[in-house]
Amino acid sequence: MKKRLFTPGPTPVPENVALAMAQPIIHHRNPEFIEIFSRVNENLKYLFQTKRDVFTLTSSGTGAMEAAVVNLLSPGDKAIFVNGGKFGERWGEICKAYGVNAVEIKIEWGRAVAPEEIESELKKNPDTKAVFLTHSETSTGVFTDVKEIAKVVRESSDAVVVVDGITSVGAHEMYMDDWGLDVVITGSQKGLMIPPGLSFIAVSEKAWKMVEESKLPKFYFSLKKAKKALESGDTPWTPAIALIVALDVALKMIREEGLENIWKRHEKLSLAVREGCKALGLKLFGYPPSHAVTAVYFPDGIDKKEFQKVLKYKYGITVAGGQEHLKDKIFRISHLGYYDEIDIVGVISALEMALMDSGFDKFNQGDGVKAVQKVFAGFEEKLVQKDNNDEMLSCCH
Amino acid sequence: MKKRLFTPGPTPVPENVALAMAQPIIHHRNPEFIEIFSRVNENLKYLFQTKRDVFTLTSSGTGAMEAAVVNLLSPGDKAIFVNGGKFGERWGEICKAYGVNAVEIKIEWGRAVAPEEIESELKKNPDTKAVFLTHSETSTGVFTDVKEIAKVVRESSDAVVVVDGITSVGAHEMYMDDWGLDVVITGSQKGLMIPPGLSFIAVSEKAWKMVEESKLPKFYFSLKKAKKALESGDTPWTPAIALIVALDVALKMIREEGLENIWKRHEKLSLAVREGCKALGLKLFGYPPSHAVTAVYFPDGIDKKEFQKVLKYKYGITVAGGQEHLKDKIFRISHLGYYDEIDIVGVISALEMALMDSGFDKFNQGDGVKAVQKVFAGFEEKLVQKDNNDEMLSCCH
Repeated sequence: MKKRLFTPGPTPVPENVALAMAQPIIHHRNPEFIEIFSRVNENLKYLFQTKRDVFTLTSSGTGAMEAAVVNLLSPGDKAIFVNGGKFGERWGEICKAYGVNAVEIKIEWGRAVAPEEIESELKKNPDTKAVFLTHSETSTGVFTDVKEIAKVVRESSDAVVVVDGITSVGAHEMYMDDWGLDVVITGSQKGLMIPPGLSFIAVSEKAWKMVEESKLPKFYFSLKKAKKALESGDTPWTPAIALIVALDVALKMIREEGLENIWKRHEKLSLAVREGCKALGLKLFGYPPSHAVTAVYFPDGIDKKEFQKVLKYKYGITVAGGQEHLKDKIFRISHLGYYDEIDIVGVISALEMALMDSGFDKFNQGDGVKAVQKVFAGFEEKLVQKDNNDEMLSCCH
Repeated sequence: MKKRLFTPGPTPVPENVALAMAQPIIHHRNPEFIEIFSRVNENLKYLFQTKRDVFTLTSSGTGAMEAAVVNLLSPGDKAIFVNGGKFGERWGEICKAYGVNAVEIKIEWGRAVAPEEIESELKKNPDTKAVFLTHSETSTGVFTDVKEIAKVVRESSDAVVVVDGITSVGAHEMYMDDWGLDVVITGSQKGLMIPPGLSFIAVSEKAWKMVEESKLPKFYFSLKKAKKALESGDTPWTPAIALIVALDVALKMIREEGLENIWKRHEKLSLAVREGCKALGLKLFGYPPSHAVTAVYFPDGIDKKEFQKVLKYKYGITVAGGQEHLKDKIFRISHLGYYDEIDIVGVISALEMALMDSGFDKFNQGDGVKAVQKVFAGFEEKLVQKDNNDEMLSCCH
């Protein structure tokens, strides 16, 4: 059976990227590798929209989260984090593990924190050193407006803004430097379209001063060591070389498509998934929606296990279930990374058929796919209009 | 040009292992992956010769070293480490970064610590909680008798024995349980023949009690979390899936060849490299020699840079240079992992030609390869004798 992954990490790996990993291994202190790694670093800056170094760590995204905490803070420092999902909650867990005084903003899983809530917490805690945010909360499919929050934090405190961009980088508009995000992290098996095993972290000049003074213990994740090694084009420890070779290919694809186009593609595909689901009578979970992953309530009255089995074993589609207390409430369809319109037609079509197989009949055959195509048609029209405008602009100025 | 790596990590990746990574990515919570990971775990136990779990971490080997320190110890605990090379020294650096009271046994780089030296340091420091050792010191090519040392430690203290087996596991005889080694770690890009990005750690029952009580901060490298996740066949964070799929293939190759045969092969190839070098008038560095890597003094009177360039760009052979103060003194030829007799003939032959090209003429053409073949011939004879004995045994008993 042909298998298709619609999970928010790992995401599908393009064939040419996968084959790049199968090339003969090269040594990480060799000129060949140094050349690849230097190109990767430049392209990562483009991806993050930053002039600062983007450090590549050999770890999952959680490793980069830990790197952010242990490199910025000292024991007893105060930090604010938002628990609005499993990954926001994780910022707090890491802080606690390292003796950071972590102030929790607990919100209902499925909504985004408002800039005012951050502002009010900062007023109560003027000695806050860092605010930890989640741009796209993978567990709930909710998007947080980190641009607005960064503005509020800057205006009301000296705290740095740390953004988990694990499922937003390469999916959502993000200008690290222009928006004043101090630390941004991401992982490899997401928008970057390569297998898991690498994570990335960039640090603003302001936040780097905290790195210089941070007293939390660290060794493997030391960013000072990473910076020193990067000065000779290298990493402090042997990196996951094959993944970096794959990353080089993936980043070239990203540059070719162009970041704005990629953001637009994610916006379009996510809208199509939401419209497709709604047309099938499904209820969406969480708001506002991330462009990376769509969370959907299981419809009442169907056998959830059976439905997932049919989806997976009859139609070859793997989606993600819910996490923690959302385990039996929602499932999540990812459209992050290497997806196009036909992929979305495919997943919504499979959803239709699996729902019908499960006895759920609140729609007519084809309703989902029809809604999906409608979104695409509308989007194209808009693009054509925009192109015409651009042409007019370029001919008249 | 055909390129050949003779570096102690990364080591060459077999073609079928490399191609396994290029397969469509699978999700780490799927039954398909759980099945692979469970087989990997069983085969890792075989590799380590232990009944204990072997935890797979997504990091370089240094990450597993850090995991050993932060999971066993508490702030202010006393530990002994042996600085006889760059990697022995690293145990001390990690301990210091985490506030462990690290007692250094400093020995000349190029020799192994003697069991008596450990014994005497333990007498001076009866409150020592852990002794950190390096089985095969990659920076010097020196082998340490951890079996004897473990015996001494057990007899004279309650400390646990922690072994960096990064370039020894899969090269040197090692029976973790039988020898009473409490913690053994290794990396993926070594004897395991896959690219870098994974590390491994196994913990004895005695050492696990320390894990339960350890107070050093940790999150990503928490072995308690790893153990809990392993109970459902998983890892706490998204692992480097493609590397684990490759590892599954590599471990099958290891089981097919058999651990004792692999150890013997490494012994034979390393002896051949040493004899080949000696026949070329080269002086070996360090004693006793590791079976994973051979350190050789640069001969006097040749242009070292030119020699290495010729070796690399004329003959396609990459060896490793020296590290730290040994940088311009030695070079290192690795024979760890996926190598056979013909590979060794190749590297010694290239060494001969590159030395001749560099004007070094303390040997006759073919001397090196002749010495290599002699070792192989002798080894085969021994094996034939052994086989005959086995046959006699099996026919007569």
